[in-house]
Amino acid sequence: MSTMRAVQVVGYHQALELTEVPVPEPVGPFDVVVRIGGAGVCRTDLHILEGQWADKSNVRLPYTIGHENAGWVHAVGSAVTNVVEGDTVIVHPLITCGLCRACRLGDDVHCESSQFPGIDTHGGYAEYLRTSARSVVKIADTLRPADVAALADAGLTAYHAAAKAARKLTPEDHVVVIGAGGLGHIGIQVLKALTGSQIVVVDRHPDAVKLALDVGADAGVVGDGTQVEQVLELTGGRGAAALLDFVGEGGATADGVRMLRQAGEYHVIGYGENIDVPTIDIVSAEISFIGNLVGTYDDLRNLMNLASRGLVSLHTATYRLDDFQSAIDDLDAGRIRGRAILTP
Amino acid sequence: MSTMRAVQVVGYHQALELTEVPVPEPVGPFDVVVRIGGAGVCRTDLHILEGQWADKSNVRLPYTIGHENAGWVHAVGSAVTNVVEGDTVIVHPLITCGLCRACRLGDDVHCESSQFPGIDTHGGYAEYLRTSARSVVKIADTLRPADVAALADAGLTAYHAAAKAARKLTPEDHVVVIGAGGLGHIGIQVLKALTGSQIVVVDRHPDAVKLALDVGADAGVVGDGTQVEQVLELTGGRGAAALLDFVGEGGATADGVRMLRQAGEYHVIGYGENIDVPTIDIVSAEISFIGNLVGTYDDLRNLMNLASRGLVSLHTATYRLDDFQSAIDDLDAGRIRGRAILTP
Amino acid sequence: MSTMRAVQVVGYHQALELTEVPVPEPVGPFDVVVRIGGAGVCRTDLHILEGQWADKSNVRLPYTIGHENAGWVHAVGSAVTNVVEGDTVIVHPLITCGLCRACRLGDDVHCESSQFPGIDTHGGYAEYLRTSARSVVKIADTLRPADVAALADAGLTAYHAAAKAARKLTPEDHVVVIGAGGLGHIGIQVLKALTGSQIVVVDRHPDAVKLALDVGADAGVVGDGTQVEQVLELTGGRGAAALLDFVGEGGATADGVRMLRQAGEYHVIGYGENIDVPTIDIVSAEISFIGNLVGTYDDLRNLMNLASRGLVSLHTATYRLDDFQSAIDDLDAGRIRGRAILTP
Amino acid sequence: MSTMRAVQVVGYHQALELTEVPVPEPVGPFDVVVRIGGAGVCRTDLHILEGQWADKSNVRLPYTIGHENAGWVHAVGSAVTNVVEGDTVIVHPLITCGLCRACRLGDDVHCESSQFPGIDTHGGYAEYLRTSARSVVKIADTLRPADVAALADAGLTAYHAAAKAARKLTPEDHVVVIGAGGLGHIGIQVLKALTGSQIVVVDRHPDAVKLALDVGADAGVVGDGTQVEQVLELTGGRGAAALLDFVGEGGATADGVRMLRQAGEYHVIGYGENIDVPTIDIVSAEISFIGNLVGTYDDLRNLMNLASRGLVSLHTATYRLDDFQSAIDDLDAGRIRGRAILTP
Repeated sequence: MSTMRAVQVVGYHQALELTEVPVPEPVGPFDVVVRIGGAGVCRTDLHILEGQWADKSNVRLPYTIGHENAGWVHAVGSAVTNVVEGDTVIVHPLITCGLCRACRLGDDVHCESSQFPGIDTHGGYAEYLRTSARSVVKIADTLRPADVAALADAGLTAYHAAAKAARKLTPEDHVVVIGAGGLGHIGIQVLKALTGSQIVVVDRHPDAVKLALDVGADAGVVGDGTQVEQVLELTGGRGAAALLDFVGEGGATADGVRMLRQAGEYHVIGYGENIDVPTIDIVSAEISFIGNLVGTYDDLRNLMNLASRGLVSLHTATYRLDDFQSAIDDLDAGRIRGRAILTP
Repeated sequence: MSTMRAVQVVGYHQALELTEVPVPEPVGPFDVVVRIGGAGVCRTDLHILEGQWADKSNVRLPYTIGHENAGWVHAVGSAVTNVVEGDTVIVHPLITCGLCRACRLGDDVHCESSQFPGIDTHGGYAEYLRTSARSVVKIADTLRPADVAALADAGLTAYHAAAKAARKLTPEDHVVVIGAGGLGHIGIQVLKALTGSQIVVVDRHPDAVKLALDVGADAGVVGDGTQVEQVLELTGGRGAAALLDFVGEGGATADGVRMLRQAGEYHVIGYGENIDVPTIDIVSAEISFIGNLVGTYDDLRNLMNLASRGLVSLHTATYRLDDFQSAIDDLDAGRIRGRAILTP
Repeated sequence: MSTMRAVQVVGYHQALELTEVPVPEPVGPFDVVVRIGGAGVCRTDLHILEGQWADKSNVRLPYTIGHENAGWVHAVGSAVTNVVEGDTVIVHPLITCGLCRACRLGDDVHCESSQFPGIDTHGGYAEYLRTSARSVVKIADTLRPADVAALADAGLTAYHAAAKAARKLTPEDHVVVIGAGGLGHIGIQVLKALTGSQIVVVDRHPDAVKLALDVGADAGVVGDGTQVEQVLELTGGRGAAALLDFVGEGGATADGVRMLRQAGEYHVIGYGENIDVPTIDIVSAEISFIGNLVGTYDDLRNLMNLASRGLVSLHTATYRLDDFQSAIDDLDAGRIRGRAILTP
Repeated sequence: MSTMRAVQVVGYHQALELTEVPVPEPVGPFDVVVRIGGAGVCRTDLHILEGQWADKSNVRLPYTIGHENAGWVHAVGSAVTNVVEGDTVIVHPLITCGLCRACRLGDDVHCESSQFPGIDTHGGYAEYLRTSARSVVKIADTLRPADVAALADAGLTAYHAAAKAARKLTPEDHVVVIGAGGLGHIGIQVLKALTGSQIVVVDRHPDAVKLALDVGADAGVVGDGTQVEQVLELTGGRGAAALLDFVGEGGATADGVRMLRQAGEYHVIGYGENIDVPTIDIVSAEISFIGNLVGTYDDLRNLMNLASRGLVSLHTATYRLDDFQSAIDDLDAGRIRGRAILTP
């Protein structure tokens, strides 16, 4: 049995450890083993180390972390028909059953018996990853796994919310994006590609606002305490038809609600604080709060399509797998613009 | 100039007074004067007397109260083409402009310059009411104004929420109705008419639950502290695809959120307390909270259609206009089943 | 290896033959073998014998016919998790791949590599049938396979079209059903369950119209040459918002187009003649023609739900499997009301 | 009473005549008189002169022609609140009632009692035009009436169809545009603005295809007899999810149907020939044919928004009103690229 390097969680509040483990093999008929070309380093990985997910995931330590993965198909189970060895693929973060009602309706994120590699089973900070035929999306030859890996989760979440909001938006509508970090950055590019509505970005950092304008926002607002008034002024006093909140903490939601027009839709993506709004305000303005969770397999296909056509891109900083600790440290210290990617 | 009887608010925390005022006449080209056949007595009328709407409505006292009206067309302005004198009509509660973007999109409830007779201008506790061509819905000859007047606002609100929820519901889905009072009662009948989904009603009062089952609910849950568990059991442990909350206070919302399945929709109709939910719960279950405010003109047409076909009905208690104080007192004391109606 | 009785096509323009063949076993990991409780005898089966499907299906003779099946799970492949031996199931007519884009979006009818047992591989005029985990829907214990088998294809097609039309219909709208035979009969029941719109049925046979009124149509029109005028009169001169054409031949489509209102939707289900309409008529009335093909797996779940609640039912005539020729002859001679069912 | 110049139809198969007529004044409370800044010369105007519309419009000769108009508000009726004298406006081609069901639902194109200036009443080849408050859209100061006038009808039709198709399109989908003339040109720009799908244009003229690629099409196909095969190759053999047919004659529809994928949508915009397709083909591929007729008032607002942001533009050739015959002659002879515009 051949072995590979893998970076594992060995205990909470402890550093990750590089170790040698067996290369995974297909076991079930739909298993697919992917040779990793790039694995995104996500803030969630820091939260895992802090133990925030211990109770939710019930994962048994040690296990290999990493949930944003792309690479090449290495081996397939007996019933796999959609990919063959050598295909370049990005990996949808969930392994889903394909048989429950949610899966049958295309809403696979709500699968009743899914697994989440990197969270509750072995992930992609490694040379190889075992996933499923239902989780691999073939990508264009022009895309490199290390360039797109971070779109597998962070990008997918932003795509899902932006595409859901876009369905109802018209050119006369304004859409506000709160938070122009990694996800917001992708969200703006997706909104630009999928809708003719007017995009207003709000962020505390002037640099982030400037970057957002560069990738397609129509107007930018620096959050200096007058952000609600600025948005209302930009929207003719009426407020925005939709808002995508990629922050969800630090008072973002109280601000955001005031930026909505009558019958506006508040998309919740970032999280941290509570939505705490009088029911009379929800009723009298007939507004909605809409949760968003990752994205479906088809969302990922669509996002990869936009990436292959140059309509969505992401700044990345690449680290060798062995140098995982530098990536973690740089992320923790706020030294990374865009996303850190590990390459074996 | 002829005069008529009208019941007016003369001061907050004071009794209503019956007085003699001029009969309204059409002034603008789209005005319509309706001879009142029935005016619903609503809990909002009690709140107006308590002064709760004083700041919101800015109405100048004295004015005639009453916002649930039906009757016969008495006179029309020069440009009115949709009704003629003698037509039997129900009156949509809002007078809308017809020119703002919301009106042009059919979403007239969000008109940018609407009036609300009975709230911010003269209403229908009277012999005649001035409204607009855009507010009158012709009804079938088989319907009597006094029987349907209360559908103009209470019924319309229930229809709007139920019809909005129904668009996404299928027979395999469960829909929970919290609160089987006047609005819930209508909501259940509308859900029954518009959807094949399974209707579960929740109410603290066994009698209300029984009545709900009589008008079409598939299952009933008496709120005895185990209502969440009962709903989960009825829904195979998954929760409901949609929930219509006609209560919105006394802990209803905290209960209701726990009754939703993944990706479920929480329709807010009743109000009183806050929706106070962690953003992480909204995201991880991908649920939505959806406000509902009255209903559009077309909603009212559809509701009248259901009423004319016997698919929606409402229990009423009729009082002569001069006996308005008894109706108010009986409502305040909880002595009315269904709705109280004043007839001139 | 045990054997079973099966009724097979041995040549076109020849009678079916009862023969002894091996009982099918699970081969692939997702295979499911069903013990047949009832197999519907469909007009398509007559067309197969006439050779109409020979070129389209490319099936190799002899093979077992029968595409409307229900029964009990007899054996399952290694990866099947959604049913166990003994479960009562109805069988969706297609075996789908689960991996192509259509399957992943829930639109499994458009699977890029599907099989159709009874058409292009062995079907259900037999004691056992091999299908897939993706094709079996567990049904309520209160439903008997022989009673619901015909809903697997004929009923499913009617459900799909009716549910698609229902999404846009409101109580003020009229929906016309052309053809009150087996499919139309189900379609009316589904429309009744899923929508509050007003159902107008059109059929040449007064008996069929009468039956349609019994199962829920609001108005009936006997096709005596004045059917278009009658429908226009019933719809206030405007025409219907939607029309479900279960006939599609003999002039039905030319009539049907004239029954539509502006922006109306013509659902094509029955087939035979051409839709032949000037583009200027399509444009100036802004009407649509919408194809309908069988139904999805989730459609079948929803239909079974309606059946289990008594909201959809079908008249059947049962024959022993050995007596298949009588069933075929009776169908061909128009002697069957509802559907003929074979039971092993 | 002051007078103005107007170009009128004085007889069919006769030349238009410039004459002096009274300046129109507001008569009804919602009337608006617009001083014309530009009036588009449309192929429909040639058809009117040929008598093709005589029976449909029943217009009484002589009357002023011209249905694509923009300019400045000159005078308003007593009840007009949405524009004031001096506002720059584009004129929606229909005068609608605002009270029928279609109008109340925002679908004003299907108004039950509309007028069409330039077709059935006096139009805009003149110095002034009388229209309605419901027909004027205020436009940005940066837009000149003569530059956008042709968007009032030709552009609006293209916007409506493109926006309707866009609602269902995703980046993985292909959309085919047949015909890259005036409307197709706008349609491509709108699709580009509203959707991330891949736009394939088909036209017989290589120059038109080249222009289409310049304004945003992703791929171009010259109709040389192999256009169907070329489209199938560009779409991976599956066909397009949607097709916008701006031609509708000369065999376009037979070709177009073959370019659709399973469940694809064929949008009919251009007209001339019949849609003539076997119902079995509509059913077995589950395709739809969808009519498109002008666009709503809100569509025009959205289109003007795109124009003001530079996302949609149109090449125009300007003629003085007195020189109307040159414009007509040049259009008839195919000498105009884009649209001819008359300016008073």
